[in-house]
Order: sequence, then C-alpha cells, then structure tokens
Amino acid sequence: MPNSADPARTTSDTVDRHTNLKRLFAPRSVAIVGASSSPEKVGYQAIHALEGFPGEIILVNPRAAEILGYKTYPSLAAVGKPVDLVIFAVPATTCVEAVSEAIKCGCGGGLIISGGFAESGPEGAAIQDQLKTLCEGSSFRLLGPNTAGFVNMHASLTASFASGTEHLRAGNVAVVAQSSGINFLVSYFVGNLGSGVSCAIGVGNAIDIDATDALEFLAQDAGTRAIAVHLEGIPQGRRLYDALRRVTPHKPVVVLIVGREDIGEFAKSHTGNLVGSYDLKLNALRQAGAVTVSSTEDLAAAAVVLSLHRLPPKRQPGFGVLTGQGGAGIIMLDWLKSADVSVPTLREATVTRISGLVPPMTYIKNPVDTARPGATFPDVLSAIAADDQIDAVIVFALPERGGAVQPEHFLPLVRRATPKEIVFGTGGSEAGIRATVDALRAQGMFVAESPEQLARAAIVLSEDAVAQWKVAQPVSAVTFRAVAKVSGNVDEHAAKQLLEAIGIATPKRVACASRKEAVAAFRSLDKPVVAKILSTEIGHKTEAGGVHLNISDEAALNRALDALDAIPLKSARRYLVEAMAPAGLELIVGAVRDASFGPTIVVGIGGTIAEAIKDTATRIAPISLAEAHEMLDELRASPLLDGWRGSPKADRDALAKAIVSLAAVLDHQPEIGEIEINPLRVYARGVLALDALIA
Amino acid sequence: MPNSADPARTTSDTVDRHTNLKRLFAPRSVAIVGASSSPEKVGYQAIHALEGFPGEIILVNPRAAEILGYKTYPSLAAVGKPVDLVIFAVPATTCVEAVSEAIKCGCGGGLIISGGFAESGPEGAAIQDQLKTLCEGSSFRLLGPNTAGFVNMHASLTASFASGTEHLRAGNVAVVAQSSGINFLVSYFVGNLGSGVSCAIGVGNAIDIDATDALEFLAQDAGTRAIAVHLEGIPQGRRLYDALRRVTPHKPVVVLIVGREDIGEFAKSHTGNLVGSYDLKLNALRQAGAVTVSSTEDLAAAAVVLSLHRLPPKRQPGFGVLTGQGGAGIIMLDWLKSADVSVPTLREATVTRISGLVPPMTYIKNPVDTARPGATFPDVLSAIAADDQIDAVIVFALPERGGAVQPEHFLPLVRRATPKEIVFGTGGSEAGIRATVDALRAQGMFVAESPEQLARAAIVLSEDAVAQWKVAQPVSAVTFRAVAKVSGNVDEHAAKQLLEAIGIATPKRVACASRKEAVAAFRSLDKPVVAKILSTEIGHKTEAGGVHLNISDEAALNRALDALDAIPLKSARRYLVEAMAPAGLELIVGAVRDASFGPTIVVGIGGTIAEAIKDTATRIAPISLAEAHEMLDELRASPLLDGWRGSPKADRDALAKAIVSLAAVLDHQPEIGEIEINPLRVYARGVLALDALIA
Repeated sequence: MPNSADPARTTSDTVDRHTNLKRLFAPRSVAIVGASSSPEKVGYQAIHALEGFPGEIILVNPRAAEILGYKTYPSLAAVGKPVDLVIFAVPATTCVEAVSEAIKCGCGGGLIISGGFAESGPEGAAIQDQLKTLCEGSSFRLLGPNTAGFVNMHASLTASFASGTEHLRAGNVAVVAQSSGINFLVSYFVGNLGSGVSCAIGVGNAIDIDATDALEFLAQDAGTRAIAVHLEGIPQGRRLYDALRRVTPHKPVVVLIVGREDIGEFAKSHTGNLVGSYDLKLNALRQAGAVTVSSTEDLAAAAVVLSLHRLPPKRQPGFGVLTGQGGAGIIMLDWLKSADVSVPTLREATVTRISGLVPPMTYIKNPVDTARPGATFPDVLSAIAADDQIDAVIVFALPERGGAVQPEHFLPLVRRATPKEIVFGTGGSEAGIRATVDALRAQGMFVAESPEQLARAAIVLSEDAVAQWKVAQPVSAVTFRAVAKVSGNVDEHAAKQLLEAIGIATPKRVACASRKEAVAAFRSLDKPVVAKILSTEIGHKTEAGGVHLNISDEAALNRALDALDAIPLKSARRYLVEAMAPAGLELIVGAVRDASFGPTIVVGIGGTIAEAIKDTATRIAPISLAEAHEMLDELRASPLLDGWRGSPKADRDALAKAIVSLAAVLDHQPEIGEIEINPLRVYARGVLALDALIA
Repeated sequence: MPNSADPARTTSDTVDRHTNLKRLFAPRSVAIVGASSSPEKVGYQAIHALEGFPGEIILVNPRAAEILGYKTYPSLAAVGKPVDLVIFAVPATTCVEAVSEAIKCGCGGGLIISGGFAESGPEGAAIQDQLKTLCEGSSFRLLGPNTAGFVNMHASLTASFASGTEHLRAGNVAVVAQSSGINFLVSYFVGNLGSGVSCAIGVGNAIDIDATDALEFLAQDAGTRAIAVHLEGIPQGRRLYDALRRVTPHKPVVVLIVGREDIGEFAKSHTGNLVGSYDLKLNALRQAGAVTVSSTEDLAAAAVVLSLHRLPPKRQPGFGVLTGQGGAGIIMLDWLKSADVSVPTLREATVTRISGLVPPMTYIKNPVDTARPGATFPDVLSAIAADDQIDAVIVFALPERGGAVQPEHFLPLVRRATPKEIVFGTGGSEAGIRATVDALRAQGMFVAESPEQLARAAIVLSEDAVAQWKVAQPVSAVTFRAVAKVSGNVDEHAAKQLLEAIGIATPKRVACASRKEAVAAFRSLDKPVVAKILSTEIGHKTEAGGVHLNISDEAALNRALDALDAIPLKSARRYLVEAMAPAGLELIVGAVRDASFGPTIVVGIGGTIAEAIKDTATRIAPISLAEAHEMLDELRASPLLDGWRGSPKADRDALAKAIVSLAAVLDHQPEIGEIEINPLRVYARGVLALDALIA
C-alpha cells in the first residue's frame, strides 16, 4: 500500500518519495538487474526495448563481463553511483535482495517485470509482502510486480518487455492501467485516433505505486494534457478521490472502471446494501471531476477528445449540432438528449442568418440540417458558433462527390476564427474518408468516424465541463449545535438529538422512564401520538411490536404501554412518546463509512420498493448543496417529489439541506460508523426525521 | 401506406405486388425517366451509377435523341415493352404524370430520386398523396421519394445518385434504412469489417415500399444472410412485427431504432402512460426475434456477426471465454454478465484437460486465462469447444512478438474441427494487427478489434439464439368461458365477470340495487367486507369517497352506505359489497390497444412508485407463458416477488397465467379498447383482481 497518507512519515519523506517517483518515470539513468544475452529472456528484451534511450544504460549481471556490447557490472553497488530507475529482470525469489541493494545504493525507483508474486500463490505473496515492507521503510519507489512496465515517449524510454511498442505513437495523452495488456491496448487506440501517448504505465500488483501515484506524477508531467485510467478495483478510494479533485481542474482525467457486476464491501453495511459498490465507485469518480466511460475504445477516444478540445467549467454548456445529413442529426440528438447534454434552440438572429444560407424547409434551429454540405456550410458553422448560447459545435458530414467544400479545408479556418470548440465527424468506407480524417487529425482535431462517436465526444466534453463546475463548488458548511459526543450504542432519542443538533427537525417527543411519565407526556403533546419502546436492545422496533401508532386517548395509550411492557428487555424499560407526524412522502437518508472511500452519503425514496429496485443516489461526503440537489434529481422516483398525481410539491431545499447536514456527521463525529434516517418525511415545507439509527 | 393488408385487395393483387417488388429490386431492365447529359443533374448521375449493370438500360428524355451514347426514347410508352424498374429523375411536379405512364406501360416498380415532396411543404405533400393513391390503385411498387435509392450488389445494380458507392463491397449483409445517409454509412461500416452488402435500400418517405416490404423482399433474396434495419419510427408496428416473426427464424435481423427520447401515441393511453413508446418498440422488435442495437457501428457489426456465426435457437446458450490477457478477460466477463449471457463453469473433465496445457495458477474454469497465448493455445480452445455446455467460444489475444501460434493459422483449423462457433478478437495498433485481422476475415470470420467489440459479438449471438427460441414458443391458449360481449362503458362488476371468464380470480362479491340487498350481501359474505359505489359515472372511486374498507359490523356498513348515498349520481344507485382480500403484494396489469402495434400487454409492481419510475414490462399480445414469466423477471422490482424481507414468495405461475389471459382479451373482444387490473394482488398461492377497469 502506498504511504503518502501515513501520519508517521515526515514531510521530507514525502518530498523524497515524490522526487523518486519522478526519477523512476523520467530517469536520467536506467539499470537492468538480470540483463541477459538470451533473446527469450525478459532481461534481454528489456535491453532491446531501451534502444534509443538518450540517458545512461547500466547492465548488471554477476556472470557476464559484457552483454550486447555494454560493459556489465557485477552488482548495483559496483556501479558506484545511484541509478534513477532499476529494472529488475531477476526471479521473484531474488527480488527482495536486489531491491534491498537498490535502496542501499540510493536508487530512485524500480520496476519488477518478473512474475511469480501474489498472483501466483502463497509463496509469491510472501515475497510481495517483504517487498512492501522494504518500500514502506524507505523512499524508494517500486512499480509492479506483475506488470509489463511503462513507456515514457517524451523521454524516449521503453521500460517494458512488451512486444509491438515500436508501433506506439508519441503524443500528449497519458495512459495508466491496472492491466498491462489494457495499458498498451488503450495506448494503441489513442494512436489509431491520430493522437499519441506521453506515458503508458501498467501498475500491476501495485504494492507501492498505484494509479493514484501515477496520476500525481502525470499531473506534473509537461508532456501530458489528458489522462486515461483503467481500474479493476479501488482499494484506497479516498486517496484516489482526493488526488482526482486536485488533478482534474488542471488536466482532464477519464476512467474506465471494470466490475459492474461486482458487489464490494460497501454493499455489506446496513444502509450500504441499498447500493451496488460499482455505483458508489462511479459516482465518486465523477464527483471528483473524472469522466467515466464503459469501454477501452471510449477510454481512448474520450482522453483524445479532452486533450484537444476541453471546455471551461460550466454548469450546463450548450452544444450546436450541424449536420449535412438529417438521419445522422436525429441519431446525434437522440444520444445527446439521453445524456442530458444541452442543445439549446438558437437565437432568432442566428436562425435568420442561417436561413439565408440554406435551402428552405430544412430544420435550422439546432440541430441545423443543411440537407447536404453545400458551399455555405462553413458560413452556417460560423453562424452557429457565434450564437452566445453555444459553447461548442459538433459537425457531421458524409463525404460528397464533388463536395463544394472539403472539411479539411474549411474546418481549420473556422476553428481559428472562433474561440468555441469545433469537433468534426464523418463516416464511410476507409478509402472514402481516410484523406479527410488524416488531414484534420494532423491539424490537431479529434475526428469521429460515426455519428455516435461524434455524439459521445460532445457528451464527454459536456460531462467534463459540468464536473469541473461541480468540483469548484464549495462544500456547504454545516453548523453543529452543542451535542454530546456519541459513544457506544445510542437509542432513538439520542440519535434524534444529534439530528436536531445539525438542524434536521424531528417530531416533538418525550423520553419516559415510567408509565406515569408516559401518561404525562401524552397529555402534553398534540394528539394523536406514537408510543415506542426506547432501547438499544431492539434492532427492528416495528417487527418486535415496539411501535404503536395513532394513539388518541389514554385508554389506547395504556393498551400500547401494556404491549410495550410485554417485550422482554434486559435493561431498564423506557418509552418514547411522540407527536404523530402528518402523512407525507418518505425517503431514506444514510451516512455510511465505506472501507475504501470513507464517509459516504446515500438517499432513496420510499420504503420497500426503493430498496428492492436499488433506486438510490450516493456521494462521497462532505458535499455541496448543489450536489445534494443533484442526488435528488438523479433518483428514478424523483417525479414523486414534484407533486405526483395531485400530491403537494416536496420541499427540495429542506431535503437537500438535511442531506448535506447528515453527510457532515461522520467527519464531525469519528465514533459514528453509520447513521440512518428512515423514514425522513418531506412536506410542502420542511422535513421531519421519524426514526434514526446510529451504529 | 403499403396495402398488402388491405382486405379489398385480391390474392392475385398481392401476388402481383410481390412479383413487382422483385422486379424493382432485382430488375432485368432499368429505365431512367429524365436522363440527362448535364453532370450536375441526378438524371446524369443515375446513368453514371448504372455502369456495369448487365441488364437493359433505357433512357427516356423527350428532348434528346441520344445521351452518353445511349439511344433515347421520348417516353416510356415509346419503349414498346414494360420495364422492370423505372428511375424517376424528374421534378416532383411532373412525377404524377410519369408514374401514371409507368403504370399504364406495365412497369414493375419505380424509384423517385428527386426531392420536393412531403418533406418540403404542403405542395410537395399534395403530390405525394396523389402518388400514394396511384400506387394503391395498382400493383406498381414505388420506392421513395426522399431517398438516394438502392444498391443490389449481386445484380451489379446501383440505382442511386449517391457518391462513393464505388467503395461499397459486395457480401451477404443487407441494409435497409429510413435515411439514405445512414443506409450507405452502415453499408460502408459492413465493408470496413471485412464483409459486404447484398442490397442497401433507403426507403425515404416510404409512401409505398417501407422497411417491412424491403424485409419481405430480402427474406427471399438468396444473396442475403443477415439484415440490418435502421428505423426512425414505426407507424405500422403490427405489420412489421408479423413480418419479423416470419423472417427471423430463417434470417437474422438486427434493428437500430432511433428515438429514445420520443414519447409516442402509446404513452397517451391510460395504462400506456406507464411505459415510454421507445420501450414498447424495443420490446416488440425483440419479441419478434430481432436483435436490437443502439448505434450504427453496432448495427453493422451485429449483422456481420450473425451473417457468419449464427447459433441455433436455444433458451440459454453457453459461451466459453478464452483470453491471452487477464485484463481483457475481466472486461469481457463484465459485459457478458451485465447482458445476462451464460458463461458456465466448465466441466471437471474440461478443466483437468486444460490444466495440463497452461501454466499453474491461471484461472481456467471459464473464462480461461492462459496468461499469454502460448503454443498450447489451440489445444485449450479445442478443449473449451468440446465441453458440452459450450455453444460458442470467444477468443481474445493481443498480438505477441514471436507468438508461437498465429491466430490466422490455427483458428481456421480449430473452427473446421468443431461444430461450435468461434469468434476472435484482438486489438492494437493498425500496423500491429492488420495482417491477422484481414487474414481471418478473408476466411469468413468476424474479427473484433477490442475486448468490448468481442463481448458485444457474443451478446448478439446469445440474444439472437434466445430470441429464436422464444419466437418458436407457441402462444398459450386461453379459454373464454361464456361471457356477455362487452359493449359501451362497463362497471367494475361486469369487468370482474369478464376476468372470471378468463380464469382470473376476483373476491366474492354481490352487486346490489338497494340498501336492503347490500345488508343481505353483507350477511352472506365473510367479514370484513368492502362497500363500493357501483357506477360507470365514477372514474376514480377512491378519490370520490366511493370505497369503504374494513367493514365488520352492520353499523359500519350503514355508515358506509350513507356515505355512498351522498355521492351525486345521474343513474340508478348501486353498491358492490365484496369480501375484503387478504393483504399482499400488488401489481398492475393492463391490456392496451396501441395505435401502431395493436393489442399490447403491460405489467408493473406496486402502485405510485412503480408508475413514477416506469418500472414496467410490455409485450405485443397475445403471448406465451414463457414470455409472461420473462416480463415478471425483467421488472426491477422483481425481487419483491421472491420473498423480500421475510414476506412469502409470490405465486409467479398464477401471475403469468393471469398476464397471458389478459393479453388474450383484446383479440377476443374487439369492442374493448383497454382493460386494466389495478391492483392485482398476488399471494403464496393464487392471485386476486381487486379492481378492474374497461374502456
């Protein structure tokens, strides 16, 4: 596990560790321990891969004086100076010794390209643990094991034994992947899109350097403009979340997280079983400003798009859609609408300007369909881009025989004349489109090869701009009124006092230690009342017969108290007599400490059905009010909040405030593992927490 | 509108129309009316496009004796014999006259490639209406207007003015599209995947020939093995549905239906507002055996996959997953699981066989991860294919330097040695993979270029096989016990009698014309009872105070009857006294006559929330029992049926039977527009319809 968050580490440790991360990924000297002259060995392939590296190359092998023309050292110590990057091409069993030596010599970092570690069984796992302990005790950085290594194109460095790397194209998209296969696959896809990679890093078993570390390095890498990340799991979610929030305002990050069907730790907690762990991960990544995708192709495409066309932060950027073919326009609009991307109706003045440029009867209010891309196509594009509601324009046109205007000629001109982003797409036979596509890509434009790919590019640009806007929103402050720190198990009354302390209203009630007190309480409260058992012994009050509703007279109260007295208890018997809340829509809101992400907040509407269909929204806590509103919006059942079938419109502001407040609790009260309001009833004005549970 | 379903047409008409459809799409002679020697005119481009057509080419132009070396006729009549296909390259305003002449001459069909019809305003729409009337009055078939035409590659015929058609590749995938741009785009995508098209047909405004007609032609076209269809709407849903059910058992059909965000007619009906019209269309297409996709790229890829690797019908085909890279295996498994594709654990014997072929500690139970594709890769593949649970194997491998086994060498061999389908995928730089990809495609295999594309191929094969299995299931017979035909508005009692006639249980009840009868009814029924107003005047009984629950004594009954008597009514006052049903999970089931698809059936769980979140399943009626079970399975809230949180398991068989029965009602009783059971309560044994509404 990486240790930058380890409180035992000193600041200078942290600085050293970051310096060594840079030494590892952008080294001036590289040593190969286990260099070999046998072509089938990784110790040979690693030398071969270093061809063209302008820095110093040092080969270490105690059994050879020279390999492939290089002088060979018997050990790292014999080199006589600290090497920046050591590539370990020795068997797992000798790695601990080799890494110890590298640490002693003051080397920056190492890369283990041999297998035989945790992925191969208990013996390998034991070696891996030893390596981890070594790294934790020093500022030496280690990449791997179980990785094919990394490539830093701008440093002309291929620290890898993977084949085919000669086909990698240099550019400014960085790739970080858990799996080495996916690392190179995505890098090649970036190249196939006419772009290229700055670095491609496979983190493998990640005993020291994980995706978060790689992200921290790439954030400061001048050759990187966008980062594509592939993850198979997120064991240290909060660390990744915090890093992303720091990085994404400066460089776009796209994440593909595999494991839709996985049910992780989060799902095991009580409130947590409302939500699949995959949803939590997705939401956390987006909340931290990353764009998420669901395939390796989309990962590459999104990163390329953002490296070339990123928009400034905006709550709802507006997209213009210009198409030479109506059918493609309908498809793109469908995708954009499904993804909630704004395609605003153009201003009257813009429409008037366009109507003078295209044949009559075409649709020109946005999308703008020119029927076919004629001579006025560039002017139509300029007109759309000039509309003040438009932040970016996507343009689709199939190749046309004798087309009056070739996209590769006019698009760069229009692009230079407007500050708005313009993204182009076409489609057809390889032979029919290749020249246009290549020419535009050479001029630094992303070019989509289908209407859907173009629509996805717009969706990515929109999601990124919106995410940046959200990341910039301050977390809403929550005032805690004086409240006893919670410790151990607490009962409903204490839980509700905590809620009141953070401004969440609860029904008027009296905690009673005797039947006499209960009767007095009944007399003092508005009728009807509810009488409940008040005890930390009872988990599910209703099932235990511990809740009696609708009590309007003392006879009924006594019957209820009789029933509560019949519940067997070890501790002293207490009652909660409470004014009964008016009917209303019910929600569940819970704050849960996730093993990976720390404090999280979840909200759902309704009882049994909401749970059964997992209709919930989750966020990493704390959150902003805007985020709380968004959580309500994304519930499938959110129409119920808007006055469904004649019921009153729910007070969304009060709901959002309650969610923000509950989200702040776990940070404020470290003793609380989980707090849940179920139900939280919402009215036309205000909310009321009817029951609360703290664990 | 096409008229094959017109009862006024004679059988010979239908035969003629089908013959003329074939004459149009596979003609021996083609005439161009409006042939021109001006290169900028479509009448010129159409001649140019006919180059290479082996049949007779006839040019018609009253103002030229010769065009481009062809003898020119002044009129179709002057040709002296009926032409199979007439291409009309004349202005909209002269089209009616030109088509009339073609009909008189006994021509087979025509294609209007000029614009200026319904899409261009009221004048064009009037012309289009005249053309429609002409077609309805004859067996002449018309394609267009507002289309760029069609291509029949096996007939060496390009009946189109579209540019770039020289890049089309011949093959056995047919494309049918509403939009001409999308028609050619998808055709090129098919070519880019190493396959080719048989026919590519743009139906445009479809005043006579629509996608359904094209489908009927292609079903009998020997050169077509799979059909890709693009639709922007489905005005005659039942006709398409019936055609698909006939075609899909013989040829796979893939459909891309645009308009996710559209809310159509179906959404306006009462029960219908539970479901978006897009969902209805998707479900109808799948129910008819089509595979549905959501992008033009996937449309092309799915059609190519099915043209090469179709599986036999099966309820749940099993897929083997073989991968040379673990990361790709995880991604593919994720996709397959999300799509409910079966990836069965391999038999013990298979696992034993494989364990002798791969390094230790790799995962080999399915997916099988060989760590890298070594020399034994082909044997591992054969072992997986030999497992009796496996119907098809997907194989992914990145290119490897000096790979012991090249996919293009061993895959065709393994494929020939097994009856199971094998689909391959790889990925990487264009330069790194092109040779392998092209070699395998040349041998008739689909080759995916990413793990996700390979997973999607498997999903398509699975969905097609499952859909074929379902289409083969007989619609379940429903016996109607003697029941009065429903006419006009009916009350709850009559509606429930209809339900009983089809075997759906309702609570014991008595319809009462007086308070005296109500009291007698109360005495005869089990207590408690419900007393309701019985009148067709009251739409929402509960809101009107017309429902009184939990009546246990006569005093309560009298209070209830007093309240019912206070409801103002024009007709004679009647009561429904009914035994109160035990508590249970509630569903809503409705049969609705959709404007496009005819009788449909919809089911949802729960009340308000189910409606708010649109958690419903829909099918075209009538249906099989298997289909009814599947409807229940696909509800997000279906866990509620399985004994959620200690409640009893619901009687799914009884529910499915009730759904099948209600689905049969609209066909049996043509007077009924809509019948809804809300709620249908389900128990551990049996169901009970608590309220019913007929419109």
